[in-house]
Amino acid sequence: MILQELRVEIEADLTRRIDALKEPKLLREALRYALLGSGKRLRPALTLLCCEAAGGRRDDARSAAAALELIHTFSLVHDDLPAMDDDQLRRGQPTLHVQAGEAMAILAGDAMMCLAFQWITEGTADAKTTSRLAQTLAEATTKMIVGQVYDTVGGFSEQVSRADRLHLIHQHKTAALLRAACRMGGICGGADDTQLQALTGYGEAIGMMFQVVDDLLDVTQTTEHVGKATGKDRQAGKLTSPDVLGPEACRAEVDRLRRDAQAALSGFGESAQPLIELCEYMAVRTK
Amino acid sequence: MILQELRVEIEADLTRRIDALKEPKLLREALRYALLGSGKRLRPALTLLCCEAAGGRRDDARSAAAALELIHTFSLVHDDLPAMDDDQLRRGQPTLHVQAGEAMAILAGDAMMCLAFQWITEGTADAKTTSRLAQTLAEATTKMIVGQVYDTVGGFSEQVSRADRLHLIHQHKTAALLRAACRMGGICGGADDTQLQALTGYGEAIGMMFQVVDDLLDVTQTTEHVGKATGKDRQAGKLTSPDVLGPEACRAEVDRLRRDAQAALSGFGESAQPLIELCEYMAVRTK
Repeated sequence: MILQELRVEIEADLTRRIDALKEPKLLREALRYALLGSGKRLRPALTLLCCEAAGGRRDDARSAAAALELIHTFSLVHDDLPAMDDDQLRRGQPTLHVQAGEAMAILAGDAMMCLAFQWITEGTADAKTTSRLAQTLAEATTKMIVGQVYDTVGGFSEQVSRADRLHLIHQHKTAALLRAACRMGGICGGADDTQLQALTGYGEAIGMMFQVVDDLLDVTQTTEHVGKATGKDRQAGKLTSPDVLGPEACRAEVDRLRRDAQAALSGFGESAQPLIELCEYMAVRTK
Repeated sequence: MILQELRVEIEADLTRRIDALKEPKLLREALRYALLGSGKRLRPALTLLCCEAAGGRRDDARSAAAALELIHTFSLVHDDLPAMDDDQLRRGQPTLHVQAGEAMAILAGDAMMCLAFQWITEGTADAKTTSRLAQTLAEATTKMIVGQVYDTVGGFSEQVSRADRLHLIHQHKTAALLRAACRMGGICGGADDTQLQALTGYGEAIGMMFQVVDDLLDVTQTTEHVGKATGKDRQAGKLTSPDVLGPEACRAEVDRLRRDAQAALSGFGESAQPLIELCEYMAVRTK
């Protein structure tokens, strides 16, 4: 499966980047712990594959891919904090604040967000590409944080229905970054406007699909299986897809989004085959 | 005094930018509270003045100036958190986590860092300038966070003396961002290499000077006067300039850095007069 192959490359690249960080060792080891413990590496894999689909080489997208994994991991570390979701377990190991203390978890999260922009701007791309990558990443990260505000603190106006709230949370908290991962890959690969629109459409569809699948796993799987606490969202009174839509409608939604994602790639031919394979995996994953 | 004039412009610009933010209102109001309560606006003022010294117009540096104030404010909001310095008072008003809750303070800080990169990359500068600005800001922000790790969590190797630790903390936590404020202003103003080096040298000197003055104020001024808790660093066993160097040596250091800063600007003539004035103010400020 393509994701396994990519995961090896991505983790080697992340390890090299973490090793290259200067003092203080405490911070470097906190970043290593959070970033390299384990993880699906979906976002960087999407970036690399979208770069290839657009005709680029994987190496053109390494900095962007690494930056996306940093942003994703920063969001997990801060979301897990006691003042937020207060989670003890992540990717099958103690969360960073349990392992290294709350102050270090806050600072390591901050450092990861910042390093994401540093890695992109220190990359080898030309200035125009770099500037577009940084803008795309910044917009998506702001959206992700807005999604986290909706999810954790609330703040919807009363007119917004439960289904619309759920859609807004998913779109911001999850889909924005997955969409950006695909779009940034396209930018790195020199995609033209039509290609970039297609890859972005694919990213949007799999982004929404990812969260519906995640919500389904949260009610159907055990903590041991997925490596993080399950059933917590429901207990915390958070909106989840199965609660709002019902499990049957969720599965239909996954199917619809899977078809949308694959349809978006129709113009690419063979070069998009790995993206179609990845979409299939994301639709049927069990952890 | 030039800073008062600039402060009005800077706050008008920040207000316009915050007003333009979309939903959720809760986040927008948290950003408004943290960013617009009050503040010296030193960093954005330096950016605007360095842009002018290099021959640019203030308007060329608005996005960079606003971004620097965002990064500075993000650092204050996260530093004040219970798991960090646990401060209740900032700029004469309750800290954001006291006002809006800890989750919102974490998220608003995250949003500010991210918006800083968004505002820069959405600015009107050409791609090369934008990419240099984003890189300079990312590097300085990473340094600032490293400084906060040293200051809050520690992690020095045992060989490092108290004086060297203090220097490392100041250089990272405070001077890096003030230096970047000057450098980014120069970049916005189209400074050539010699000018950019001079403005960066000025920024480095006033950056170190700022923190020595701050440490002196922490032991000589009251909480009411400076609008934040004083004497806390010493109580918390943190390294401060008066403790490590003694108050006399601190004052000599301020004088030395003031002269260094002004010497760095010798090639500019009239256009750097406001920067010299600002340096004088920073050396003798009492809050």
